[in-house]
Amino acid sequence: MTPEKPPAPSPPRPETVFDWVEHRDSLRRQNGLHRVLRPRAATEDVLDLAGNDYLGLSRHPAVTEAAAEAVRTWGAGSTGSRLVTGTTELHATLEEELAAWYGTEAALVFSSGYAANLALVTALTDESSLIVSDRNNHASLIDGCRLCRAEVRVVAHSDPEAVRAVLRESPRPAVVLTESVFSVDGDVAALDRLLTVCREHGSGLLVDDAHGLGVLGEGAGAFSAFGMGAPADAVATVTLSKALGAQGGAVLGPRRVVEHIAQTARPFVFDTALAPAAAAAALAGIRLLRGQSHLPARVRAVTRQLREELLDHGIGVGEPGAAVLGVPVGAPEAAVAWAGRCLERGVRVGCFRPPSVPDADSRLRLTARADLEDDEVRRVAHVIAETAPDFAALSGG
Amino acid sequence: MTPEKPPAPSPPRPETVFDWVEHRDSLRRQNGLHRVLRPRAATEDVLDLAGNDYLGLSRHPAVTEAAAEAVRTWGAGSTGSRLVTGTTELHATLEEELAAWYGTEAALVFSSGYAANLALVTALTDESSLIVSDRNNHASLIDGCRLCRAEVRVVAHSDPEAVRAVLRESPRPAVVLTESVFSVDGDVAALDRLLTVCREHGSGLLVDDAHGLGVLGEGAGAFSAFGMGAPADAVATVTLSKALGAQGGAVLGPRRVVEHIAQTARPFVFDTALAPAAAAAALAGIRLLRGQSHLPARVRAVTRQLREELLDHGIGVGEPGAAVLGVPVGAPEAAVAWAGRCLERGVRVGCFRPPSVPDADSRLRLTARADLEDDEVRRVAHVIAETAPDFAALSGG
Ligand SMILES: Cc1ncc(COP(=O)(O)O)c(C=O)c1O
Ligand SMILES: Cc1ncc(COP(=O)(O)O)c(C=O)c1O
Repeated sequence: MTPEKPPAPSPPRPETVFDWVEHRDSLRRQNGLHRVLRPRAATEDVLDLAGNDYLGLSRHPAVTEAAAEAVRTWGAGSTGSRLVTGTTELHATLEEELAAWYGTEAALVFSSGYAANLALVTALTDESSLIVSDRNNHASLIDGCRLCRAEVRVVAHSDPEAVRAVLRESPRPAVVLTESVFSVDGDVAALDRLLTVCREHGSGLLVDDAHGLGVLGEGAGAFSAFGMGAPADAVATVTLSKALGAQGGAVLGPRRVVEHIAQTARPFVFDTALAPAAAAAALAGIRLLRGQSHLPARVRAVTRQLREELLDHGIGVGEPGAAVLGVPVGAPEAAVAWAGRCLERGVRVGCFRPPSVPDADSRLRLTARADLEDDEVRRVAHVIAETAPDFAALSGG
Repeated sequence: MTPEKPPAPSPPRPETVFDWVEHRDSLRRQNGLHRVLRPRAATEDVLDLAGNDYLGLSRHPAVTEAAAEAVRTWGAGSTGSRLVTGTTELHATLEEELAAWYGTEAALVFSSGYAANLALVTALTDESSLIVSDRNNHASLIDGCRLCRAEVRVVAHSDPEAVRAVLRESPRPAVVLTESVFSVDGDVAALDRLLTVCREHGSGLLVDDAHGLGVLGEGAGAFSAFGMGAPADAVATVTLSKALGAQGGAVLGPRRVVEHIAQTARPFVFDTALAPAAAAAALAGIRLLRGQSHLPARVRAVTRQLREELLDHGIGVGEPGAAVLGVPVGAPEAAVAWAGRCLERGVRVGCFRPPSVPDADSRLRLTARADLEDDEVRRVAHVIAETAPDFAALSGG
């Protein structure tokens, strides 16, 4: 008699395969990191300082009419990848006018700023490259670094000397990766100094200008705001989804570099092109900004006024470089509760918690808008101050 | 006298930093792999079999009117990440109706199908996981694999036995990654058999249904076409940019899994929400399809007719599973030239070359559309046949 084989272990039931997500869920809830998607209505009686519609263009009639007309002319979708059927004359016009306005030889439009950043980093590096990346860089830039095959060295925030030290040591061809206006804290990178450091070492400079476009200088982006001209050794990305009020992203730079990205970047080649409505909206926004350049100055004035009003109320907030203000809170629960109290009083503010910010560094994030009136700004500061937590109690004092 | 230090090597001039892209460019041109972006006009006298607008919904008046109205109601952009200001009631309605139609508990909408795939793969795996990935999977799935920290095992195309062999050997928690309809060849995965294999081993099944939605079965996606119900151990992604004629993507599955992706996936958390126009267009498309289910059957009938006409003309083409037909050519130059001759005669076909397909495997890619008339299909087949290269000469015979 042969011994019986032990029965095969029975597989988990289908219902249990993803059980592990519930454990993660309870951990998040315990740590005050659970997030709720709150659908907003089309019209609300709320002053919004949480979105990135810096210039109010998303609702500007010239922008919305251009988008509506594009849907009728071109259809709701672009029907294919940019290299197959997705490039319409509208995309080509947007790229031409965007590049001319930004001051670079060429522009290439993507379905999102996220995709543009993935494309930028992966197409301009390979296993022989070094990327020197600011430690506060946006998730999309970090994901670009994870996706590519280069060596990545993360350096101290906004520290050209730290960048220089890394470049000096390394014999590899390098690119330096930074935001122009950092999305969380709103501070501005010293692009001129970074470019000098890059040039000492023959490195390229890659700038994510998501929060600079429409806000810095005359609004035409960080290269012109810093008087950098059209650098042959720098490439920028922008989003069409913030100051331009639409959706999408773009890479801007020397023609041959932009062309290389179009030929090789997987998030360009294998992604459906941006919808015509969004392309037309961004184009209309650019045309407005070319003529009507008070909007960038206005959004910065609103930012300064908001900061001064908050300081008058005793709310600590750093010096703004662009149109983002951070109000430090500390614990995520306290930040969420504060933002909740603001919303009850008709003011929507952003609330940034880990993983968007480091642990114990949760904050309110306020974005100014060019279309806020002075008395609205006063009301915002008043509401934020009135609903502020007792910081002394929070820090155990 | 101290010896003089050798002079520091002078850094490359800024103009030379990106010189390497020109070398890559000439290589591509030598190998027939240079691509040209050809902007198309709004109205053309061309029969399009290159785009992915399978059901013709991109130009359907109900779809375009819904998109135009959404721009006016909600603005051109969504103004922020889904977790900040980007979730409108429109996004919530789209997610509800999409999930109900698809037959899953929940849906989560992204700015693109690419982003949905990156989110799916990265949020449902970690360094302890194994991913078993079909070797023909789309670039966005492969990029998800590159971005996550899991071990990835690439298996033979459409081979449930190969999947079983890998799962049997591995003690790690695993997910199996496949397309429903493979985007290049148009063949359909044996999802039922894959699900059985997954269940034997307690693994999850992840299905990219980009080319199945709107085409397979009643159009409501691969899970219902395969009679899989709402599996607790499977998650799908779709794009809103192909059969739905809009832009965007979605993850569909059990509520807790979808919720986990919303809480943790970086391409969701750190990306601006889909523009309202695209969300409204996709919603209008779903509402049309719920009632008007002849479109999926029609696009398959067009595909079959096209294949038969091509076979009648002596053009070899495989058995279609959905609405994609591949016509093998071989060398990239021959495929480009053939597609060019078709376009001159008013028929636009896709032309897939490396890296979209393996070397020496370039092909024409034809996508059927529900809104093609029988005589248009005949004309397409006729033009393709008339412009065909001399295959005997091509293969050196
Ligand atoms: C600095 C930065 N870069 C890139 C992005 C991504 O752009 P998009 O939302 O258009 O994908 C964002 C925000 O979303 C951002 O804040
Ligand atoms: C199989 C497959 N998955 C995902 C995608 C990406 O979807 P999207 O173009 O909406 O980003 C595509 C095509 O673009 C595809 O063919």
